[in-house]
Amino acid sequence: MKTLSILGSTGSIGTQTIEICRKYHSEFMVVGLSTNTNIELLKKQIDLVHPEAVAVMDKEKADLLQEQTDVTVYSGLDGLNKIACLEHADTVVNSLVGSIGVEPTHSAILAGKNIALANKETLVTAGSVIMPAVAKHEVTLMPIDSEHSAIFQCLNGENKRELKKIVITCSGGPFKHLTKEQMKTVTIHDALKHPTWNMGAKITVDSSTWMNKGFEVIEAHHLFGLDYPHIDVVVHPQSIIHSLVEFTDHSVIAQLGLPDMTIPIQYALTYPKRMQSSAKQLHLTEIGKLDFIKPDMERFPCLKMAYEAGMQGGIMPAVLNAANEVAVQAFIKEQIGYLDIPAVVSKMLENTTQLEHPSLRDILIIDKEAKEKTQQLIDRGFS
Amino acid sequence: MKTLSILGSTGSIGTQTIEICRKYHSEFMVVGLSTNTNIELLKKQIDLVHPEAVAVMDKEKADLLQEQTDVTVYSGLDGLNKIACLEHADTVVNSLVGSIGVEPTHSAILAGKNIALANKETLVTAGSVIMPAVAKHEVTLMPIDSEHSAIFQCLNGENKRELKKIVITCSGGPFKHLTKEQMKTVTIHDALKHPTWNMGAKITVDSSTWMNKGFEVIEAHHLFGLDYPHIDVVVHPQSIIHSLVEFTDHSVIAQLGLPDMTIPIQYALTYPKRMQSSAKQLHLTEIGKLDFIKPDMERFPCLKMAYEAGMQGGIMPAVLNAANEVAVQAFIKEQIGYLDIPAVVSKMLENTTQLEHPSLRDILIIDKEAKEKTQQLIDRGFS
Repeated sequence: MKTLSILGSTGSIGTQTIEICRKYHSEFMVVGLSTNTNIELLKKQIDLVHPEAVAVMDKEKADLLQEQTDVTVYSGLDGLNKIACLEHADTVVNSLVGSIGVEPTHSAILAGKNIALANKETLVTAGSVIMPAVAKHEVTLMPIDSEHSAIFQCLNGENKRELKKIVITCSGGPFKHLTKEQMKTVTIHDALKHPTWNMGAKITVDSSTWMNKGFEVIEAHHLFGLDYPHIDVVVHPQSIIHSLVEFTDHSVIAQLGLPDMTIPIQYALTYPKRMQSSAKQLHLTEIGKLDFIKPDMERFPCLKMAYEAGMQGGIMPAVLNAANEVAVQAFIKEQIGYLDIPAVVSKMLENTTQLEHPSLRDILIIDKEAKEKTQQLIDRGFS
Repeated sequence: MKTLSILGSTGSIGTQTIEICRKYHSEFMVVGLSTNTNIELLKKQIDLVHPEAVAVMDKEKADLLQEQTDVTVYSGLDGLNKIACLEHADTVVNSLVGSIGVEPTHSAILAGKNIALANKETLVTAGSVIMPAVAKHEVTLMPIDSEHSAIFQCLNGENKRELKKIVITCSGGPFKHLTKEQMKTVTIHDALKHPTWNMGAKITVDSSTWMNKGFEVIEAHHLFGLDYPHIDVVVHPQSIIHSLVEFTDHSVIAQLGLPDMTIPIQYALTYPKRMQSSAKQLHLTEIGKLDFIKPDMERFPCLKMAYEAGMQGGIMPAVLNAANEVAVQAFIKEQIGYLDIPAVVSKMLENTTQLEHPSLRDILIIDKEAKEKTQQLIDRGFS
């Protein structure tokens, strides 16, 4: 039996993880949960899975909850770290959103926990520190992202030294057919109509700007050890092929399925086993055709910036992420326009002095500073 | 270093195998060759790879060749068996066409050789005998067919008990858009214009009637141990996805590549390693789109008959193959029409008395008898 701590248990990935754990209750026990603000759902989850401890970001809300439950309630980032390091957890599912997820992942690795990772920022901002820690502490890091789960599955039983290229697919998002001129007037309401996957607002906006795809390129670089020129992005509107790998003999292996996060989440939990899932079966003849289009990085500069930041390395990916996180929140709050997102990020990257080999502490400080500077840039009336 | 005997070395698969062996001469040594009639090419191959022994089907031609070379020259089926069992060969590449390939495969397995198998008839007619022999003698049987190589690659590192379904792709052949009425007038010249793969005349005709796909279904049943209802065929005109497997969690893994037999042949030789190949790289955005269409078994009854013969088991697949082999030769010689191929095969299957658990000897006798009866049926003026 695997014992899990779920960070971000009230989000989309978190709730699906709990569903799978309840379905296979003889395989999984949940010992820790955490939420940012959704106390009501957290209470329900406590009743469902009876964890040892939970964490709530806000101290006051945590204290209020502690009065209503026998379960230990922690608060703040410190609370997240405690949930990530619970003695009885052997695996930490990190489905937090944002760079808040970096430190708990790192703490969990140091405590010898295996990681099922949905938090992109862990690898985008701190991949250069996290991956050596994974190797040093001999833990397993399982990607939950559908693309990285696909690549991970395609590499099953293969020799990674024979891996030549990764092709990450991209649905293209809701604005794949818009001109730059048309993008100027895109609102948050337009952006939240993402056609394929059901996700939170931040990731939905990131998907529409292709910054999400850029993050995935950086994650793939860290997870699978390929240089950026060997990581391609291909637009594939049907989102059936979740990614592909090419080997030295030019044989290509792909993972496919209907767009449903159940498969990658469950695989991260059951690996190396596979178990029956609630995901619907893929019938290719019902889909009819699969399209593949070259990505247009001029219309979607976020992807280009992510490649560049990734290749520069050092603190650049952390700044890319921090600037984007603040810019997207400002767009969600209708403080800036849609095309201001790449403009803000670009400006922040230009104004950054590189630091080649940052420590985790450096990265966390730079993340905080870059967010503050981005907010100042926006508040100064950047638009 | 692997040491190979190549049965059918002057055919399409055989010549490509020799090319790969010459490219990686420090990895492979060829110790045996065989040809049906192409003495001139065999002589060139002898000069290129310096085998210990060769076989030529025709006794007179074999004797003539023996006068011109220091290499030992065997003849007939007995000669093929000798080449299949050469002491210094650890692997036998069987790229013979027709049921003549069954006995040498079996002899090689009994002699402890690993098998790289391109000869479909080995498994179609005698899979029920061959697979237990493979298990008993603990040899490895590597498929060379692009579809079965694809499935084999997709199963790398996976647990076969978690395999739920196989989807074999089918280009559809040159007549996929023809009505039954239009098929009546198809000639051998029309059939040899196969759009995708470069193969011999027999397999090209079998591809056009979809009998080849039916054989592949039967082979897949034997190779991967799935019942027929779990083996699907999907028409995929671009021939980029070479086949797919679905697991219990509904995750699907596929193998892709440009249509080039180099990859499956080389993989069968280098397995479990992969090495650089001369196959061109796949660029999905250059292909643009992949189509998937349900197969129409009414217009292509050969596929339906193959499923039925496979499900009936016993000697039915051997009769299916024998009748088809003779009917296709009659069509190539313009003795019968295109739609007579399925009609002849159907008639032969109808007139067969089932034998549930045939031995190899039973199968070889029935193969011979069924071929004679099919020829008589055709000679009696079936058309």
